[in-house]
Amino acid sequence: MLKTGFQGRKLAEAVEVWREMLEEKEITIVMGLSGAIVPAGMGKIISFFIKERMIDCLVSTGGNIFHDIHEALGGKHYLGTHNVDDAELRACDIDRIYDIFAEDKMFIYTESIIGKFARELEPRTCSSREFIYLLGKEIAKNGKESIITTAYEYKVPIFVPAFSDSSMGIGLLHSNLFIDQMKDVEEIVQIMRKAKNTGAVYIGGGVPKNFIQQAKLIARHLRKDHRGINYAIQFTTDSAQWGGLSGSTFEEAISWGKVSKNAKKVQVYVDATIALPIVSHSLMEKKLKRKAPLLIKTK
Amino acid sequence: MLKTGFQGRKLAEAVEVWREMLEEKEITIVMGLSGAIVPAGMGKIISFFIKERMIDCLVSTGGNIFHDIHEALGGKHYLGTHNVDDAELRACDIDRIYDIFAEDKMFIYTESIIGKFARELEPRTCSSREFIYLLGKEIAKNGKESIITTAYEYKVPIFVPAFSDSSMGIGLLHSNLFIDQMKDVEEIVQIMRKAKNTGAVYIGGGVPKNFIQQAKLIARHLRKDHRGINYAIQFTTDSAQWGGLSGSTFEEAISWGKVSKNAKKVQVYVDATIALPIVSHSLMEKKLKRKAPLLIKTK
Amino acid sequence: MLKTGFQGRKLAEAVEVWREMLEEKEITIVMGLSGAIVPAGMGKIISFFIKERMIDCLVSTGGNIFHDIHEALGGKHYLGTHNVDDAELRACDIDRIYDIFAEDKMFIYTESIIGKFARELEPRTCSSREFIYLLGKEIAKNGKESIITTAYEYKVPIFVPAFSDSSMGIGLLHSNLFIDQMKDVEEIVQIMRKAKNTGAVYIGGGVPKNFIQQAKLIARHLRKDHRGINYAIQFTTDSAQWGGLSGSTFEEAISWGKVSKNAKKVQVYVDATIALPIVSHSLMEKKLKRKAPLLIKTK
Amino acid sequence: MLKTGFQGRKLAEAVEVWREMLEEKEITIVMGLSGAIVPAGMGKIISFFIKERMIDCLVSTGGNIFHDIHEALGGKHYLGTHNVDDAELRACDIDRIYDIFAEDKMFIYTESIIGKFARELEPRTCSSREFIYLLGKEIAKNGKESIITTAYEYKVPIFVPAFSDSSMGIGLLHSNLFIDQMKDVEEIVQIMRKAKNTGAVYIGGGVPKNFIQQAKLIARHLRKDHRGINYAIQFTTDSAQWGGLSGSTFEEAISWGKVSKNAKKVQVYVDATIALPIVSHSLMEKKLKRKAPLLIKTK
Repeated sequence: MLKTGFQGRKLAEAVEVWREMLEEKEITIVMGLSGAIVPAGMGKIISFFIKERMIDCLVSTGGNIFHDIHEALGGKHYLGTHNVDDAELRACDIDRIYDIFAEDKMFIYTESIIGKFARELEPRTCSSREFIYLLGKEIAKNGKESIITTAYEYKVPIFVPAFSDSSMGIGLLHSNLFIDQMKDVEEIVQIMRKAKNTGAVYIGGGVPKNFIQQAKLIARHLRKDHRGINYAIQFTTDSAQWGGLSGSTFEEAISWGKVSKNAKKVQVYVDATIALPIVSHSLMEKKLKRKAPLLIKTK
Repeated sequence: MLKTGFQGRKLAEAVEVWREMLEEKEITIVMGLSGAIVPAGMGKIISFFIKERMIDCLVSTGGNIFHDIHEALGGKHYLGTHNVDDAELRACDIDRIYDIFAEDKMFIYTESIIGKFARELEPRTCSSREFIYLLGKEIAKNGKESIITTAYEYKVPIFVPAFSDSSMGIGLLHSNLFIDQMKDVEEIVQIMRKAKNTGAVYIGGGVPKNFIQQAKLIARHLRKDHRGINYAIQFTTDSAQWGGLSGSTFEEAISWGKVSKNAKKVQVYVDATIALPIVSHSLMEKKLKRKAPLLIKTK
Repeated sequence: MLKTGFQGRKLAEAVEVWREMLEEKEITIVMGLSGAIVPAGMGKIISFFIKERMIDCLVSTGGNIFHDIHEALGGKHYLGTHNVDDAELRACDIDRIYDIFAEDKMFIYTESIIGKFARELEPRTCSSREFIYLLGKEIAKNGKESIITTAYEYKVPIFVPAFSDSSMGIGLLHSNLFIDQMKDVEEIVQIMRKAKNTGAVYIGGGVPKNFIQQAKLIARHLRKDHRGINYAIQFTTDSAQWGGLSGSTFEEAISWGKVSKNAKKVQVYVDATIALPIVSHSLMEKKLKRKAPLLIKTK
Repeated sequence: MLKTGFQGRKLAEAVEVWREMLEEKEITIVMGLSGAIVPAGMGKIISFFIKERMIDCLVSTGGNIFHDIHEALGGKHYLGTHNVDDAELRACDIDRIYDIFAEDKMFIYTESIIGKFARELEPRTCSSREFIYLLGKEIAKNGKESIITTAYEYKVPIFVPAFSDSSMGIGLLHSNLFIDQMKDVEEIVQIMRKAKNTGAVYIGGGVPKNFIQQAKLIARHLRKDHRGINYAIQFTTDSAQWGGLSGSTFEEAISWGKVSKNAKKVQVYVDATIALPIVSHSLMEKKLKRKAPLLIKTK
């Protein structure tokens, strides 16, 4: 597909750029994850990226991590349809995410389990990264394999910058746990600062994309020898003409210094549920062995 | 335009639904604001909504409030072009937001002013809402009229749920101020809980849309007599088929109980920079006098 | 709105470019019309453009002209909804166009009237332009005001390059009338060739956009002193990244010589049902008096 | 991917529906082809569909067939970039189609070859289908394998309903050949009428989609036992909310009777340059042997 045009070629170029990233020495690769990727059944692919160390760090919406925990605890996402009477679903306590269905009560159960875990911890102030690490450790004991358990095992940090904007945050209401999101900023900036080179893979845009780019900018202020992100990939269904950060081009990001003007970069306009299976499959075929950096000494 | 089809009619319907909202007794209207709305010159319109009490509460991305403060402090957003060599802009320290330009050094200045203000406050833990209130009070002293000064004056609370994901958050690094985003959740839930009826106007989607809907859900758990949001409007350039929350239909939201099945609701697929001038102009012509609720006793 | 950003500013720029076009001496302005613009209630606005001579020539899909005739003959387009059971509509013989409804039997009636008119003409070969002129003349006798009757009256030629791809074409099955679409090409090329300057206003893309650009290219081959189109406006909901002609940028058109590199040009990403009422209203306020060229001596 | 959500699942469902179509006895499968599919390098895949008789009939924009002939005659489409100075390309006589480049002079050459062929034929009136058949026969003699030569060989008819709206049409200016597009309507209606079942695969929308649906409607009027299209697939980057035919849902098409209410149908929102390689690869793996109908006795 490298020899085609339009988004087909971009998709092939994305695989190429990712591969080059993986072959780069001394690089830290951060993934931004937004959209209802986990409910759409892509959780296993994200876990695969973690296991094969195709990413070193994950920045996610709270929703995706919550749905991942939901699955780890045995909750399901059902194949539904987008053509349906939602008032009827409501009457049956079924929540719809486009063509995916889920049981409302299971979400409440997942929320309660997170809350219970948080209340049992001794009072503390921590980053979202640290809380998710602790939760991953707990769930790894008897939950099913999932993103957070895999990330725990492979020591890949997960940040959720808008933690309170998700059912995970809600689970922590009335606990003694205090999520300090400025600490998340400090931690990811440390990661960016130590990295000789940086790569970014954005699934969608939103807070995760901005959070990663912001961290890069702060790291640049701290280390004058640093340039913007060196390898950048985005899969998005947004468009540049709307002016928002999610759909903004990597060219625009160059003006800010977020992305290096010499970066290898490609944006693919496609639903991630199409891109991720193809890209992961292509990367898998290459059998890359990568020695990945340990980013954070987790306690 | 009510007698046309497609998005032209939806735009007219949005004005109708908003008008009905304003005539409803005992309603609390919350606006969600995402996308680079302020850099695009829409700040005055948001201030207008606040002044005329067409909204009672604002949930925003950090970016929009940061850019608003930037303008209040004398910073500019320049008319640029989207067809430009970004490496050249970079060399001139000019940041681009689609066809808007801004000086990087002025952003750094704004960030430093926020940081200075935060460091001068005595150590405290507060919600983003409270911090923005204090900052608005300060800037109202000699800054130019802006969203936060107008909101301060008219006692309209502003929430920024992903506070650390913006230059505002960055400004607070190394301060004694601690933003507790769970407190933001508690505060907005209180607002939702007290409201007999609720209206929501979403400019874009993102965290603000989710945060408002989440607050509604929690409020419903606390008050069993509550139903979902009664009036809902969204202006968006996203689409339902991508499965994300931003573009999801209000029908889908009914299945979750976020929106009442009897709600008056309309989604308009259009760039907000086109919709807002038209809608605000249409609402202005009606000369509505609305007695608005005081939502939060601000300290 | 000229002092805003994103598509709001583009919309204001479109009005500016159109105004400059109207003030240009010796210019021929061609409009390309695609999408279900007439069913969406925009017919009156197109007629307004013709009457005020804001366009000199119209290139349209067959569908729009067919729906215009349907209205001229008393047919209706009803305000419907896009959330509906289509099998039920089918059972009631109601055709849906997003949120517009129409009676199937009235479409068949309109088709039969066109067929009857065609069969009563003496056998001939003509361009779509000529046939629509004759039909407009006929309908002007007792039909309601519409695009084709206004175009007839104001001597504005209408081309339908994909004539057989519409119910209008179907109406001509089994008639002695022969639509020669190469003659349409020749006629519009004559118009382009004689024009000192050319302006193009595209509502959507599709065949009309390509047909106009193609005519310009042929005219350039015939007159070496000619450059590409001088003023170009497009309202579209398509995007450049899909690679198609409809969403392609005017920059791309420069590489082909379709648009002059010095052209005043603007593309606005917006539903035409929003853009057209605003743009027509803004142009109306200027009270421009334009002496328009007579393009084709109609027989 | 059948067990995922959003467009990833739709893509898998499209493969399923196509496979069922191929296993259906007595079915005629028509493909609609729009967008710059051939310049984007998809020509071989369309030829593959013809060879493996995964389609029985092709309705295309003129552009795609012209670009196919261009390639058959040795013309190239080069891998370019969408970030480029188009005035510079213009100065080099290079035409851009998003990220594909081509030499303008080769297009003129292709046009001249078509014109020469047409002028050498004895004067006649024919459908676009017949002309393309004759041209395919000629090019098959010594041109490279391409869509039209494959279609000639495998007796798959190709219709171009907006023939004059393409460089192919232009090639015929000043020839004695007369393309009668009503004859195209009659021919495809015959095909639809004879078909016990019908399947439609739309690559994009535009004239080809409308032309096929229109043919179905006429066929239904002629044979009262007929229902709408039984199997329908569309790959599109358009969206329903804009109200146009290209992006309209198959549900909407049910109201018109274009698509049967019991049809197996799926619309995938994705760039065809991504969908086609995946879908063709999946279908290839199944090794289906299909006995295809001979649709038109070609002369």
